[in-house]
Amino acid sequence: MKEKLSIIKIGGNVIEDEKELHKFLDSFAAMEGLKILVHGGGKLATQIADKLGIESQLIGGRRITDAESLKVITMVYGGLANKNMVAQLQARNTNAIGLSGADGNTIRAVKRPVTEIDYGFAGDVEEVNTLAIDKLLNAGFTPVFCAITHNKEGLLLNTNADTIASEVAIGMSMDYDTTLYYCFEKKGVLLDITNEDSVVRHLEPLYYQELLNKKIIADGMLPKLENCFHALHKNVGKVCIGDIGMLDPRATLYTTITL
Amino acid sequence: MKEKLSIIKIGGNVIEDEKELHKFLDSFAAMEGLKILVHGGGKLATQIADKLGIESQLIGGRRITDAESLKVITMVYGGLANKNMVAQLQARNTNAIGLSGADGNTIRAVKRPVTEIDYGFAGDVEEVNTLAIDKLLNAGFTPVFCAITHNKEGLLLNTNADTIASEVAIGMSMDYDTTLYYCFEKKGVLLDITNEDSVVRHLEPLYYQELLNKKIIADGMLPKLENCFHALHKNVGKVCIGDIGMLDPRATLYTTITL
Repeated sequence: MKEKLSIIKIGGNVIEDEKELHKFLDSFAAMEGLKILVHGGGKLATQIADKLGIESQLIGGRRITDAESLKVITMVYGGLANKNMVAQLQARNTNAIGLSGADGNTIRAVKRPVTEIDYGFAGDVEEVNTLAIDKLLNAGFTPVFCAITHNKEGLLLNTNADTIASEVAIGMSMDYDTTLYYCFEKKGVLLDITNEDSVVRHLEPLYYQELLNKKIIADGMLPKLENCFHALHKNVGKVCIGDIGMLDPRATLYTTITL
Repeated sequence: MKEKLSIIKIGGNVIEDEKELHKFLDSFAAMEGLKILVHGGGKLATQIADKLGIESQLIGGRRITDAESLKVITMVYGGLANKNMVAQLQARNTNAIGLSGADGNTIRAVKRPVTEIDYGFAGDVEEVNTLAIDKLLNAGFTPVFCAITHNKEGLLLNTNADTIASEVAIGMSMDYDTTLYYCFEKKGVLLDITNEDSVVRHLEPLYYQELLNKKIIADGMLPKLENCFHALHKNVGKVCIGDIGMLDPRATLYTTITL
């Protein structure tokens, strides 16, 4: 039987709220077994960029990572957010080690090709170096990934944290029984967006199709769930979606997704 | 016989000059055997702090690390400088892994006690976790340390890069035959400060005392050399001081210090 491995992704909204962050780090530190944390950076990068007089470019609602924005992202995600989270986890006796995809060549990406839109220094994951991550886990470290990868040619690349989490989970599923947790601001997939308690406890492909047909799942939730099913089809054992309360072993109100 | 391990410290002046940095990284990547890089951040942190409107406080010529300055240092040293250097080393097939002292709890420090001066978030190294560094080396990684430590209670601390280099070298000397390299802007210890070629090739305690008596060694060089002899007395095998040319295996013009 394969050993269990949890991959937990937290969003920017948790990082920005100090109280929420500490609550999350307490739960993460208390989780048993092998685990990997993946974090975004949230609005902090935009705030610092604003202060530095760097304008955030958006095309069709998507952020463009120009050279100056990449510097800010490297400072905020790779430096400020990552190192503080690592220090906080060390204080909780979790032997965290902060990583970008460049560190130990753990995640190699390719700069997104320019089509109608030039996304700049945005990276699409090409390869997760499971051997390197495995070495760190076996040495007793808990990897904490920020949303930065590299192209193995000296370039750092801004990469979607949800994607990093699912790609790491997919890669590690070769050797581990993986569970992928997406922590966000809602309690899970909701049947009624206005009712926080209308959480779908269990989602599988048939029910998902039914919810899609009824247009209950739409907007931001759609790519998130597509990403979850993609991970499951690539051998990730289970995906859980909910707020940070879901990491409590007694928690019941969150969405579990399986095939 | 113990395995060889090189610990190389580069100063801010190398990091700031892109051409010099690439030359250094070429030499570092070409160095054979196990190695560890330690880097400062240089004036970049001050530049970013200026842009963010954070005033750098100096008391008696020494920088005070207040909470805002610590954030900038964490962004610039731990993020921007460290991650870019790691990505550049990966492009040179050196399996670099970027670290602060918080990562893997590699370097624990204590916040400098407040006496007449409150240095703020400045850290004095208390313990180098040689076991953790050894695990990374054995797993095939090349550690790249920025000048940040932590107190194991959640606080990051700004720490002198020269000290980090010597303390890591001292710690690792238990298990390795260590050489500590200090790369700076001069070719080595100079007999005549106006003549770049008046390099002392070999320094040992007696000759050092003679140079001290003749007032040939003074100012900034004094604490640097005291630090070197401290490392040698704590079992570091050899200390070399020079510019980045010293890392070339054919180099001869630099200072080697032994007991």
